[in-house]
This record gives sequence, C-alpha cells and structure tokens, in this order.
Amino acid sequence: MNLFYQPDIARQPYLTEEDSRHAIKTLRLSVGESISVTDGQGTRFDCVITKADARQCAVRIVEFHSTPRRPFSIRLCLAPTKNIDRIEWLVEKAVEIGVERFSFFFSQHSERRVLKTDRLIKIAVAAMKQSLQSYLPQIDEAVSFSQLLAAIQEEHRFIAHLPELSAPEHLFNLTVPQTSSAILIGPEGDFSGEELKQAVEAGFRMVTLGKNRLRTETAALTACQIINLANISKH
Amino acid sequence: MNLFYQPDIARQPYLTEEDSRHAIKTLRLSVGESISVTDGQGTRFDCVITKADARQCAVRIVEFHSTPRRPFSIRLCLAPTKNIDRIEWLVEKAVEIGVERFSFFFSQHSERRVLKTDRLIKIAVAAMKQSLQSYLPQIDEAVSFSQLLAAIQEEHRFIAHLPELSAPEHLFNLTVPQTSSAILIGPEGDFSGEELKQAVEAGFRMVTLGKNRLRTETAALTACQIINLANISKH
Repeated sequence: MNLFYQPDIARQPYLTEEDSRHAIKTLRLSVGESISVTDGQGTRFDCVITKADARQCAVRIVEFHSTPRRPFSIRLCLAPTKNIDRIEWLVEKAVEIGVERFSFFFSQHSERRVLKTDRLIKIAVAAMKQSLQSYLPQIDEAVSFSQLLAAIQEEHRFIAHLPELSAPEHLFNLTVPQTSSAILIGPEGDFSGEELKQAVEAGFRMVTLGKNRLRTETAALTACQIINLANISKH
Repeated sequence: MNLFYQPDIARQPYLTEEDSRHAIKTLRLSVGESISVTDGQGTRFDCVITKADARQCAVRIVEFHSTPRRPFSIRLCLAPTKNIDRIEWLVEKAVEIGVERFSFFFSQHSERRVLKTDRLIKIAVAAMKQSLQSYLPQIDEAVSFSQLLAAIQEEHRFIAHLPELSAPEHLFNLTVPQTSSAILIGPEGDFSGEELKQAVEAGFRMVTLGKNRLRTETAALTACQIINLANISKH
C-alpha cells in the first residue's frame, strides 16, 4: 500500500510534484485508480486519480476518515550532532516508531551552530508515509537552551544524563502512560553544569536509558522507544 | 573515557594498527599513560602505554577484570537490505543498546544476494568500544533461510510479521526475562508464505512490534529494544 501527503488536499485536490512523479512515473498509476492521501493532521482521504500527470496528478476525494491523536505524546529535545546524517536518521526512525515533536537546541558543548530543518521535514514526511501514519510530527527550528526550556509545556519532563555521573531511575519506570512527555538528550560532549542546573530548575527529572554509553542520536531514539513501550505495556 | 579492542591482548600486549593510530595520533597519548582494553570476550584490561608507536602501541597489563554475560541474550535474524547502509546503521545501533548475535539470511523476496560481514564487524567493534562494553557481538555469514532455521538454538523464537496480515501479541508481552531469544525480521517484500510456514514449524511464534509499518532495519532495532526493555522492567 502507498500513502501520499498533501497538507491541503481538501482545497487542492492534486498531489505534490514529488508525489505526482512517484505515483505516475514510478508506480505507473493511471486514471481511475484509487490512492490514499493524508493531510498530515490526522485525516486520510481515499481518492481516485482523475488526471495522471507526472507533474501534477489530479485526484477526486471519494471519502475521508480522521484518526484521533495518540493518548500520549513524545517531544524529543536534542542538540544537532556534528555529523548531520545522525540527526537525519534519528528523524526517520523516530517518526517510524512514533513521536510527536522534535525540538532542537544549541548546547554550550555542541559544535554545530546551524540546523536546516527543511530537509529534516522532507525526511519526516517520507517516514510518515512509509509507516502509514496520518500525523506529521512537528520539527522546531533550533533555539538556545534557555529558549527551549522556557517553551516546554509537557506534563512530564526528563533529562537523560550520562549514567556514570549518577544512578538515576530508568525512564521506563518513570514514564506515566497517557500523558505528555518531553525528554532532553545530552549533546555530544554532554550538558554543561549550568545547563543541568537550568534543566532541573525547569522541572526536568534525571533519568537513565540503560547501562551503555549511547551516542546522542541513539539515546534519543531509545528514549522514544522507551516512552512508546511504557505506554503500550503499562495498561 | 576511551576503550580499545585487542582480542588477544593477553598474548599480544599491543594495540591494533587502527587503535594505535587513534591512541597516539588522535588522542596524543604517551608512555606511562593508562588505557583500558577489552578482548571482546568480557575481560577488560587496565594497561599502561610502554611504547607510544602510532603503528603498534605497546602496553603493559596492570590488572584485568571480567564481567559476566547478560542473564539473557538476543539474536537478531534478518535479511540484508537492498541498501547496505541500513544494515550498517542497524549493527551500530543494536550493538550500542545491547545485542548478542546477528544472523543474516537470504529470503525468497530479498534482492541482495551477497553480504560482506568484514565491514559489519568493524562497525560492531567501534560501537562496542564507543558504548564501553566488553563483549563483541557475533556476526554470522549470511545463509539460506532453511539453514538459518536449522541453526537456531534459542529457547524463545519470535517472528515479526507485517501487522496488517494478522493481529498477534506484542513482543514485549511474550518476552520471558533471563532467557535466550531469537527474532526473525521480515525482509523488504516480506516473507513468502512458504518461509512463514517453515518458521512456524521451527517453533517461531508470530509477534507484532507495534501498529506502524516499519522498515526492516527499524523493525530489527525495535525488536532489540523491546527484548532489552522487557528484561529490565519485568523483574
């Protein structure tokens, strides 16, 4: 099954240029064939192709159905890695397994000072379609660490810190199902003492993700897996 | 902290060429400095550098301590993906979070018919060192599906199958802590009916990893996370 993405399908009943090419050139779909299109906001549209144009494939909406949001949400907060490929695969993988939001920050210890989110959004769209989901996770522009802390609204706030420095509780045990969670992931080079202090003051609780020392992007994906799994298994 | 790898450190008290370069050229370590070396079989050696040679850094073993294996084991069984990068990152990530063994097979539906394991082993070594572990996971040469099934010794056997085709139990609920588990991951293009039949006959139980359709490598990493987490949280 193939799922396409058109955020404004209701008012613009045709596929994006990229999806049009994929539908007509790659999949060789033709007039009269049925496809599914999501608006990335929870509604999936069953459509029929009315014009098999590889630049702008027109469709007619047959019916649509909305799916509710998950009863919990995950906001991953991390600093961009020096090697951007690592962030790109994190976005792909986290979207596949389920995440609501990515919030990037520049840490005192992070080398990278620029993050382009347009390519990350493309990757998130592809992962949403590939995993047959109807919601496109939000990807925030990178901000300073204090700006990030000020913006956090989630009920439960966790900070994953290098295990050797302390022995906090495991994130799995502290995850409260059916609530909103934000998790701060230590950057390459870890948080500064000042950042740790700020986070704790902002209500973030120290957690461990396990015994092994994990790379930033591995820690972020693991945290996402843990919160997803705690929600599945705890009720 | 840096961890080095020398499988035969007891009889060959010097670092590999790659680790020697890293220790002397990159980290600028010199004679008299302490380093840790693992043999990849559970023993970590505290050493002192006796010859700071970037091609062959000699060390003296000061003391060593062995760590027991985990009380459970995970064997990931999957078909190589068309794009080998996806297998390479899976190996890096699974080793970071904890896995005992990778077993690759060629499925009726898998396009790739060749898999070089030497590069995967290099990646596993790097991930073991990076995550400060003392055991190097085993990486088997790819074999046919029936050869793989015949070789499985693990107590608990699971097969992750596309959720839409059935509604099996979640792997988390079926994982038995402190036991050995093998999990078969569906290849790109999924298992053939014949392969599914063979797996079930070989004692593999159908499981789901969640609602979303996951890529092969994402499913493999997710299965690994689930079994690790079930072992942490269920006792």
